[in-house]
Amino acid sequence: MSIEEQAKLGREAALRLASASTDAKNNALERIARNLDENRGDILEANEMDVKEAKKANLTPSLIKRLELSDKKIDDIIEGVRSVIGLEDPVGKVLMTTELDESLTLYKVSTPIGLIGVIFESRPDALVQISTLCLKSGNAAILKGGSEAKNSNRVLFNLIKDAIEEDAIFKDAIQLVETREDVRELLKLDEYIDLMIPRGSNTLVRYIQENTKIPVLGHSDGICHVYVDKDADLKMAVDIAFDAKCQYAAVCNAMETLLVHSAIADAFLAAIKTRYDEQGVEIRGDERVRAIIECAEATDEDWVTEYNDLILSIKVVDSLDDAIDHINRYGSHHTDAIVTADERAAERFLNEVDSSSVMWNCSTRFSDGYRYGFGAEVGISTNKIHARGPVGLDGLTIYKYKLIGNGQVVEDYVEGRKKFTHRRLV
Amino acid sequence: MSIEEQAKLGREAALRLASASTDAKNNALERIARNLDENRGDILEANEMDVKEAKKANLTPSLIKRLELSDKKIDDIIEGVRSVIGLEDPVGKVLMTTELDESLTLYKVSTPIGLIGVIFESRPDALVQISTLCLKSGNAAILKGGSEAKNSNRVLFNLIKDAIEEDAIFKDAIQLVETREDVRELLKLDEYIDLMIPRGSNTLVRYIQENTKIPVLGHSDGICHVYVDKDADLKMAVDIAFDAKCQYAAVCNAMETLLVHSAIADAFLAAIKTRYDEQGVEIRGDERVRAIIECAEATDEDWVTEYNDLILSIKVVDSLDDAIDHINRYGSHHTDAIVTADERAAERFLNEVDSSSVMWNCSTRFSDGYRYGFGAEVGISTNKIHARGPVGLDGLTIYKYKLIGNGQVVEDYVEGRKKFTHRRLV
Repeated sequence: MSIEEQAKLGREAALRLASASTDAKNNALERIARNLDENRGDILEANEMDVKEAKKANLTPSLIKRLELSDKKIDDIIEGVRSVIGLEDPVGKVLMTTELDESLTLYKVSTPIGLIGVIFESRPDALVQISTLCLKSGNAAILKGGSEAKNSNRVLFNLIKDAIEEDAIFKDAIQLVETREDVRELLKLDEYIDLMIPRGSNTLVRYIQENTKIPVLGHSDGICHVYVDKDADLKMAVDIAFDAKCQYAAVCNAMETLLVHSAIADAFLAAIKTRYDEQGVEIRGDERVRAIIECAEATDEDWVTEYNDLILSIKVVDSLDDAIDHINRYGSHHTDAIVTADERAAERFLNEVDSSSVMWNCSTRFSDGYRYGFGAEVGISTNKIHARGPVGLDGLTIYKYKLIGNGQVVEDYVEGRKKFTHRRLV
Repeated sequence: MSIEEQAKLGREAALRLASASTDAKNNALERIARNLDENRGDILEANEMDVKEAKKANLTPSLIKRLELSDKKIDDIIEGVRSVIGLEDPVGKVLMTTELDESLTLYKVSTPIGLIGVIFESRPDALVQISTLCLKSGNAAILKGGSEAKNSNRVLFNLIKDAIEEDAIFKDAIQLVETREDVRELLKLDEYIDLMIPRGSNTLVRYIQENTKIPVLGHSDGICHVYVDKDADLKMAVDIAFDAKCQYAAVCNAMETLLVHSAIADAFLAAIKTRYDEQGVEIRGDERVRAIIECAEATDEDWVTEYNDLILSIKVVDSLDDAIDHINRYGSHHTDAIVTADERAAERFLNEVDSSSVMWNCSTRFSDGYRYGFGAEVGISTNKIHARGPVGLDGLTIYKYKLIGNGQVVEDYVEGRKKFTHRRLV
């Protein structure tokens, strides 16, 4: 079957799925959970082949770690499916009700988006997670996993397919494609695919963004900042700057650049350097930083670099304005934090920094769907339309308007024989 | 100044505008209204030049009618600005509040999108409308009007600019570009422009959609359907089918294809033909329609044609399913209506027709921001993300997350020393 034919089937499935009941969707998810549980052996066997090939191909240990499944990890995957069952159905919510006139009522109702294209790297658990999130939100999905996880993905996909294929509503709802050539084809199918969600490296995301007319949900860079204001509590600033960089450096919401107000720079930089040195953080400072602590030199390139590692650029600024300007200019509009006891400075920072998440007196690492309480995360978006910041199930929905009358025609309102009441009911 | 430099200025203005107070925005709008009022002579003079040139260039009477301003039309424009002042500020609304833990609170707050590119044709009043909608929602805008309205647009733009330029917050917030070459440049500036809104012909919209990586809000085709079910009230069906086609045929929410259930086709088609004949509607029917009434032949091309005129294609179907399939296959996902007394058929139609507005027992012509009670309309969107259907001021906003703590770090939660409460407050 061609990729276009797969997309067509997916689109037809999406139309059926849009009116699936919550029970039907939860039952399908439960069947998936059970099918995964009952076929652990097949999953582990296929995964072993992938891991063996990955080792042969000399992939990095961290890549292999993300690729590798275990009985415990399969538990987590199944637990993940069941937690999606527990989430509220995001479809069919009445978002607004307006009486336009007597017996003419407008409802704004949440609906699925349609057919979602998902391209992800290495982690085979992403296949299950994204499939179940799409099904729960009534969307069909067409998936492309990393080639390193080819065998694992195929088995996981088949177990999902087997679990739902007998049910006419869910038939063809999840499609798998496998090669890079397939991805190039997918990206052309803006007629069928409503949204692309790339989950993986900056390079992957940027490639998708630059090569399709389909809307893309996600973010490429995560260049996050912490700004330590002159009125910061010193101990709090050190704790937050340490957590934002060191708690987990390889992720998008870790801090890459630390901005420090000149009035507090001497005391703060000395204190944080001790902490960073213990963790082996490489510091790259501008001239004024280097006048206070010993470190490497930061160049302009550093302000736009996401290290994803225990490396950090630091800059001394003279004002809140300078900090905000730096962040809006060099940042990636992902997550940025201020540490200060000055409420007015905080308020300005929260309003004027143009990022998806802005924080006051806490670590950038909180920027995450689970920590935000969304239950499940589709990804983090730095888009300025549709969904921004950590995206939960809601991000996989849109709405339609339903207008219910008893024979009304527009001519009566244009000619003044009838008048709109426009009474907001909900 | 180059287009890129204009866009850069617009982007900087957008950052300032994002924290403008409601009063500041309303005052700016009031200054605009007054400046327009005090300079009617200049507007009319420039418009006269445009109209003279348009007549010389033999533009169609309907184009010239849309281009032409009068004292009365200027009243309407000013009234439009004042009505935007009266609308609720869509920015700064707290959409959700969640306690993540004690003294760690997450707020989801509506924000402007940023810099909006607007490309519109002929009507000079669109320039004022879209500028004021953008300013009210805290967005900057870069505008390109139709070349036919060049002189009118320039005067209107300058009056807006003069009214707000002195105010540092609003400086550079509205930019004008003039040539087609400028538009080509604009479409490349996805780094600066967050959203494009084209308002005009299908050709214009499709050109924009196909030539930019910037998200585009709008719709190209408006191929709307009315489906007359077997259980329709005959008189109601005739009234609705008449209104949907004849009330104003040149607009996107007018019906282009009428679907009729075979069980009611004889009686209904005879009745509606009399009404259409009175208005001179050209009917193109499929074979089964032509067996009942005299009319031209509909080809497959007709099912995908937006006539924007007193022309209509009619098809006889044998079931609700056939009607839904036809609409989802050939329609443009804009607005579609069912006429029926059967509640279950209506419910299925409303759920399964994949369009931005779906209607039961009323005319497709209701699909409109003013009629829906939004106060002002940015346009009608058939997108599947961000905003769908008639788009009000809300469609010009997105949101950001603000997380406010008192020193929290993620490590404490990862290590189990602290636990999230995730208590939804609003």
